[in-house]
Amino acid sequence: MFKTKNFEWGGIDCSKLAEEFGTPLYVYDEEIIKSRCREIREKFLERWENTWACYASKAFSTKAIARLILNEGLGIDAISLGEIHTALSAGFPAEKIELHGNAKSYDEIFESVKYGIGRIIVDSEDELNLISEISKAQGKITKILLRISPGVKAHTHDYISTGHTGSKFGFPIESEMLKNAVKNAILNKNIDLMGLHFHVGSQLFESEDHIFALKKIVKLMSDLKRDFDFETREINFGGGFGAVINPKLPHVPLEVFTDSMMELLTQECKINNLKRPRAIIEPGRWIVSESGITIYKVEVVKKLPEVTYIAVDGGMADNPRFELYNAKYEAVLINNPDGEIYIPENNSKVSIVGKCCESGDILIEDAKLPKVKRGDLIALYNTGAYTFSMASNYNRLLRPAVVFVNKGNAKLVVRRQTIDDLLSCDL
Amino acid sequence: MFKTKNFEWGGIDCSKLAEEFGTPLYVYDEEIIKSRCREIREKFLERWENTWACYASKAFSTKAIARLILNEGLGIDAISLGEIHTALSAGFPAEKIELHGNAKSYDEIFESVKYGIGRIIVDSEDELNLISEISKAQGKITKILLRISPGVKAHTHDYISTGHTGSKFGFPIESEMLKNAVKNAILNKNIDLMGLHFHVGSQLFESEDHIFALKKIVKLMSDLKRDFDFETREINFGGGFGAVINPKLPHVPLEVFTDSMMELLTQECKINNLKRPRAIIEPGRWIVSESGITIYKVEVVKKLPEVTYIAVDGGMADNPRFELYNAKYEAVLINNPDGEIYIPENNSKVSIVGKCCESGDILIEDAKLPKVKRGDLIALYNTGAYTFSMASNYNRLLRPAVVFVNKGNAKLVVRRQTIDDLLSCDL
Repeated sequence: MFKTKNFEWGGIDCSKLAEEFGTPLYVYDEEIIKSRCREIREKFLERWENTWACYASKAFSTKAIARLILNEGLGIDAISLGEIHTALSAGFPAEKIELHGNAKSYDEIFESVKYGIGRIIVDSEDELNLISEISKAQGKITKILLRISPGVKAHTHDYISTGHTGSKFGFPIESEMLKNAVKNAILNKNIDLMGLHFHVGSQLFESEDHIFALKKIVKLMSDLKRDFDFETREINFGGGFGAVINPKLPHVPLEVFTDSMMELLTQECKINNLKRPRAIIEPGRWIVSESGITIYKVEVVKKLPEVTYIAVDGGMADNPRFELYNAKYEAVLINNPDGEIYIPENNSKVSIVGKCCESGDILIEDAKLPKVKRGDLIALYNTGAYTFSMASNYNRLLRPAVVFVNKGNAKLVVRRQTIDDLLSCDL
Repeated sequence: MFKTKNFEWGGIDCSKLAEEFGTPLYVYDEEIIKSRCREIREKFLERWENTWACYASKAFSTKAIARLILNEGLGIDAISLGEIHTALSAGFPAEKIELHGNAKSYDEIFESVKYGIGRIIVDSEDELNLISEISKAQGKITKILLRISPGVKAHTHDYISTGHTGSKFGFPIESEMLKNAVKNAILNKNIDLMGLHFHVGSQLFESEDHIFALKKIVKLMSDLKRDFDFETREINFGGGFGAVINPKLPHVPLEVFTDSMMELLTQECKINNLKRPRAIIEPGRWIVSESGITIYKVEVVKKLPEVTYIAVDGGMADNPRFELYNAKYEAVLINNPDGEIYIPENNSKVSIVGKCCESGDILIEDAKLPKVKRGDLIALYNTGAYTFSMASNYNRLLRPAVVFVNKGNAKLVVRRQTIDDLLSCDL
């Protein structure tokens, strides 16, 4: 009988990966990450002068990805000392790191100023005062951007919409708070206000929210020029560029966002008699999500009249995104990737669920897979972003390993946690 | 000027705890945990003969709580090798541990059989076969309960309702699957079928769901007696007993659940001519939740027309329960616990949010607190369950420390993670 080929990722049979590294397993195809970085260089950095791009490492932060991003010539956007130290320990130069966050701690700012982090994206008046105080004490001049809340409701899940009116992030675009911050920053000798930052939300597929926000930002640049004779030297568009659910779909080209934004920025600056500032983007998910899959082993198949459950050896502890955002995934049966889809006789659905002790622990509510049995291996696509980074030890499960694959070679980059790791902080 | 006393927990000024151990900080008052355990002994174990109680350690699993539970004379319900080893490493005897889970791995069953875990609560046919195989290979007789899905929709959040028709957990009460499992278990020489388990859901405040399910379970016991001459020696009611939002409210007395269940069980067994089986409960949240608070430092206060944000140094990484279940909390301002509630001039709300880079990172959407400023300390009540246990390193934040307090004494039981811990699995 003809045996179909097992499902491969990065040129490697995924059943071999499961055998060697165990399951659950996060697997990243380096080639896909590199091709996204190449696209950033060719379609943005080289196409438009005076530009820069930082990888938003909150999507997936490990030493290995930091090294890869460094080699690809991009910067890193960090949100905590944990992300900063992950980048630094991978050899990232501090000036290529920028620090974000709506509630930065004293230590985060102190260390960032000390190391000479490239930019601090300032989120509030309290933070501006703290940066001023710390920079003065250290005798440093800290380069900052002010994060602007542009008052744009992005077309995405509420939890990942960030630029709306009343958002916790940034200075509202038409506010005294913002005017005061600009005034204070300009006058402050220990602060170098380089420009403005905005981010409208995540997992977007069209540029209209970015464009709408950018128009408001250019208007703000014009007002700041008029009122404070302030020239905006940098404008950071944030990220939010979406990732597709499975690799058979074409990925969203970067220029869908960047070309329209750069054209608008160039044109509006001309009209308003402004020097076009340096333009920066911060893609995170867009770079890594589609490169990643998660391999699970099937522990139990339970056929009920209402639903057939495929219960796997992971779940919400390694990927809480269904439970948090109702995120949609698609799966492939590794030992029979092209088999006929199984539909229970009564047309009921097939759900892939995790092993945690709660009903919300779902990976795919309505999965389309061939018939699955205990011991089979399945892979979920598009799990490269916000899975490892959001992983917990819920139910005292161990965090899975991370493997990078590339043209037939596999490399363990984060080892699986052990029981000793789990208990290492217990006294 | 009269200085009001700072907020205390376990007889200790919480600002002193923050100073000594840092923030965010999980703090547990041992006395509250002990009083719950005492209540279990007095109102259940001593009031009703032939009973047993296990702490559902998924609510909060560390060596320290395992030791405390052991000293209080209860068993432990575990859901993974991680929870089993946490209990074993604290000196828990294996026979006082029971293993749960809808997707148990080969290793989990293999080690449980090897150690002689007290009970395995069997969730599926696949699992029953695996236990049989492993027990035979090891020459052991494994004591099991069958988890029954009683077909009761509990009055709680969908994600934590577990006993409904179509649940991923257990054998549906009226199914061939269940009959086959009972038949196979009875005939199997390596399996000792002790009885039945059910669990209707979590965070319940009335016994009606439990009672409704129990009636169905006694009917099942009667059917099994008639059809297979099988005597149910044990019946496990599960847990699900709720915890209250703040310590000023009286906690839910255990006997609200246990008295009505035990009376019904005794009476129904009599009517059906059945020997009343041993009765077991598995409270988790009810034992630890109200004993725990989380202390945070305020990093930023941002007053917008729509909402005033109090941004703290933790959030969804140490407590994702708002984002997952829309869980409600109440807070206290540690340096002014009895101050007048601050209401913004335009009557807008005050939200306590975390430091993670997403809008869903909320702790309390509509908080009632005195006026708060940067540097203040606040505590959230009722965070003893499903916070530490669900904690992630999202945004590469470090997992907070856990401190046990008791009549003025504080003891660090889990140390705060360090950057080295964070990077310890990175290769």
